[in-house]
Amino acid sequence: MLNNKLLLFILLFVSISLVHAQPTEEDNPLPNIVLMFIDDLGYGDLGCYGHPTIRTPHLDQMAYEGIKLTSFYVAASVCTPSRAALMTGRYPLNAGLPGNLGPDSEGGLPLDERTLAEALKEVGYRTAAYGKWHLGAVPDYMPTDRGFDEYLGLLYSNDMMPPWVNTERPLQLYRNDRPIEQEVDQTTLTQQYTEAAIDFIQSNQEQPFFIYLAHSMPHLPIYASADYQGKSAGGDYGDVIEEIDSRVGQIAKVLEAEGLTENTLFIFTSDNGPWRNMPERMYTTEPVEPWHGGSTGPLAGAKGTSYEGGFRVPALLRWPGQIPAAQVSPEVCTSMDLHATILKLAGAQPAPKPLDGIDILPLLTEQAPSPRNDFYYFSGEYLDAVRDNRWKLRIAAKADDWISHETMSGDEPTLTELFDLHNDPFEQFNLAKEHPEHVARLRKKMQQFAKETGSALRE
Amino acid sequence: MLNNKLLLFILLFVSISLVHAQPTEEDNPLPNIVLMFIDDLGYGDLGCYGHPTIRTPHLDQMAYEGIKLTSFYVAASVCTPSRAALMTGRYPLNAGLPGNLGPDSEGGLPLDERTLAEALKEVGYRTAAYGKWHLGAVPDYMPTDRGFDEYLGLLYSNDMMPPWVNTERPLQLYRNDRPIEQEVDQTTLTQQYTEAAIDFIQSNQEQPFFIYLAHSMPHLPIYASADYQGKSAGGDYGDVIEEIDSRVGQIAKVLEAEGLTENTLFIFTSDNGPWRNMPERMYTTEPVEPWHGGSTGPLAGAKGTSYEGGFRVPALLRWPGQIPAAQVSPEVCTSMDLHATILKLAGAQPAPKPLDGIDILPLLTEQAPSPRNDFYYFSGEYLDAVRDNRWKLRIAAKADDWISHETMSGDEPTLTELFDLHNDPFEQFNLAKEHPEHVARLRKKMQQFAKETGSALRE
Repeated sequence: MLNNKLLLFILLFVSISLVHAQPTEEDNPLPNIVLMFIDDLGYGDLGCYGHPTIRTPHLDQMAYEGIKLTSFYVAASVCTPSRAALMTGRYPLNAGLPGNLGPDSEGGLPLDERTLAEALKEVGYRTAAYGKWHLGAVPDYMPTDRGFDEYLGLLYSNDMMPPWVNTERPLQLYRNDRPIEQEVDQTTLTQQYTEAAIDFIQSNQEQPFFIYLAHSMPHLPIYASADYQGKSAGGDYGDVIEEIDSRVGQIAKVLEAEGLTENTLFIFTSDNGPWRNMPERMYTTEPVEPWHGGSTGPLAGAKGTSYEGGFRVPALLRWPGQIPAAQVSPEVCTSMDLHATILKLAGAQPAPKPLDGIDILPLLTEQAPSPRNDFYYFSGEYLDAVRDNRWKLRIAAKADDWISHETMSGDEPTLTELFDLHNDPFEQFNLAKEHPEHVARLRKKMQQFAKETGSALRE
Repeated sequence: MLNNKLLLFILLFVSISLVHAQPTEEDNPLPNIVLMFIDDLGYGDLGCYGHPTIRTPHLDQMAYEGIKLTSFYVAASVCTPSRAALMTGRYPLNAGLPGNLGPDSEGGLPLDERTLAEALKEVGYRTAAYGKWHLGAVPDYMPTDRGFDEYLGLLYSNDMMPPWVNTERPLQLYRNDRPIEQEVDQTTLTQQYTEAAIDFIQSNQEQPFFIYLAHSMPHLPIYASADYQGKSAGGDYGDVIEEIDSRVGQIAKVLEAEGLTENTLFIFTSDNGPWRNMPERMYTTEPVEPWHGGSTGPLAGAKGTSYEGGFRVPALLRWPGQIPAAQVSPEVCTSMDLHATILKLAGAQPAPKPLDGIDILPLLTEQAPSPRNDFYYFSGEYLDAVRDNRWKLRIAAKADDWISHETMSGDEPTLTELFDLHNDPFEQFNLAKEHPEHVARLRKKMQQFAKETGSALRE
């Protein structure tokens, strides 16, 4: 017979053991997320994506330590809607922001949308955004209103000032919701954002953290800090990219020094293709030169178009121990899928509105095929194209460029193009006439999706 | 006092020690050379050079273990002269072969030129060539006449037969100087060449070896072997490149198994840019499809042109312990420099005629700058362009394509273009008007070099 004291002792012992057997936060903590979202970086701008002269040893290393995605899409080929899709996991039109915001725009990302930062904050993350926001530059819409504990950056694009954009609002660097620099020295931006991110990493290790690092560069006009000027064999643009690469190396070094490499999902990607089809107003105003835009590599089109060069961007993901090293995947996936994947990893609450993103963790960690069947290319209110793995149907305005999109009426002449993206990722050969069956099948998909999203379709 | 016996003993001991202190062949043997020279592989065709969907894990690994060159030039943008320059270390016009040979051509590489194989054979190498030769298909000019102990391959291009080329000579696979297959099954070529190279490695380890592995693919018409057909997300062309990549992996594996990795300089490059500007005669004959040509990535032009896409090709060099890993270099160097470097490494006899190649070993092993000041772009007898690091001057026929070159009279309209290859590696912006000083300086260089080489110049 056991006496009560002994029984109590045993129960206590068993209880304590059970508690210790549970995985604690210390055993298996939620991963930190560093998400770099570079402005107008093109598919061909990094060494590991084939740039002929720009050197990016730190990003090449990141690719080698993780996965390089070669059919990774953003959900718009211009800034604001692409960022809206990343932040909500939803196509821009679904998220209520199909077009670009200007410096004087009212509102921003609709307040009934949940941002990635809000989702992560709910489950205990410390959150910070550094760099370009472009989802609202007025009270209630600023980063610190939308789930970020901290912010440092430009609220919109670095050219949104005279002589490039007509506005009386000065371009200012904000800390949280206040301007701190009246006259921004753009040569310092890449460094300032990086240092803020490093400070945040070093001072926030009690909770998991989410850093959204959205460099203002290489959006035009481009600037590198003094140490990087004139150094690259890739010219002025090369200087800017090589600085970004070098700053990535600084962050990786700090993660390593803090023992966080293994528990940090480090993502590097871009918001849309490069600005190669520069409007004439840019050419004629210093310090922009016509060759200051980035490169799509071999892809057609550029920023603002619904060819591959507008939507397909570099994407590197590193998470040692979880994502096997030295992978290259041509599986189709998107920025909205990153959103869904991060929610899953963090055990976030289910999204309040239907996600267009799909969890791609098995693709990253187990070489599983992409769960995504279709990707839709929007240009503002218009649904321009759809891709379903091999085939892409594009029914879009002939004058498909950055400036035309700002002034489209819907009556423009239309082009119907079918591309075999396996044999012809460069969109050189329109096979619409040879394959009416694919045109019909994909047109039906576009009609269906246009109906679902309330978007416009050209016929 | 020492007696004589003891003195003798001491002298003997010292002598033996001295002999052992000398580096013997066993301590520091001459390196094996595996030189892969792929036919019409474009700058953008490999994963590590940014192809959007073709996967080349073995070549990516090779790049990571060695050096990737991003401003590496061949000396002609078509097959025969490019091969002549590699084999002699001299510009094609200097080596007496400025233009392509056909299946019925008499002669070949002039017999007073010394080939790389001859130079290496003189200092004790076993030598073998597998694949396309294209430097002479008649007695005295065959690979086994020009320094190769062994040969297996097609003596010229794999399209040099009806319906593509008008000839009565059948396309045949040769072993040494005899045809062994009357009807070539081109789907087997990549595999057959690879297996021959592997046999050679496994059975030749008494002497250092030099293997010249010049795949017939991906020259049109393209064929992959059964195991690789329909596998690549890069389509038909992707299948062919992924087979080549996989075969590179097989060779690397055999080198490793034989303990030769550390003592083998493994080089992978191409003979010229890809065949994208396909003549119409190719489009209309099965099994060639218009999208079967490779990619220049972001570079302008293609095979047969003097834009970058014709002359700049992928180049990977791996030599563990000698060439540091994970290097990417935008320094300007050439196939002729490879020749000179290999001669140096092998301690070969001085070249009997002046080399145009320069030893680049310090660039490969110590990150030294390129010793090369200028590179000259020849199109047949014409000197089309010069590059001196940043600037390229091009004075060439307007109709600069593959077929036009075969029929040029010299009276064609001319274009003068100046490109800043740092800011504009894509040759999009002609700065001839803005920088007459660079035009004048480089024009003088072209005039001087045209005089030296006896080449034609357009004005």
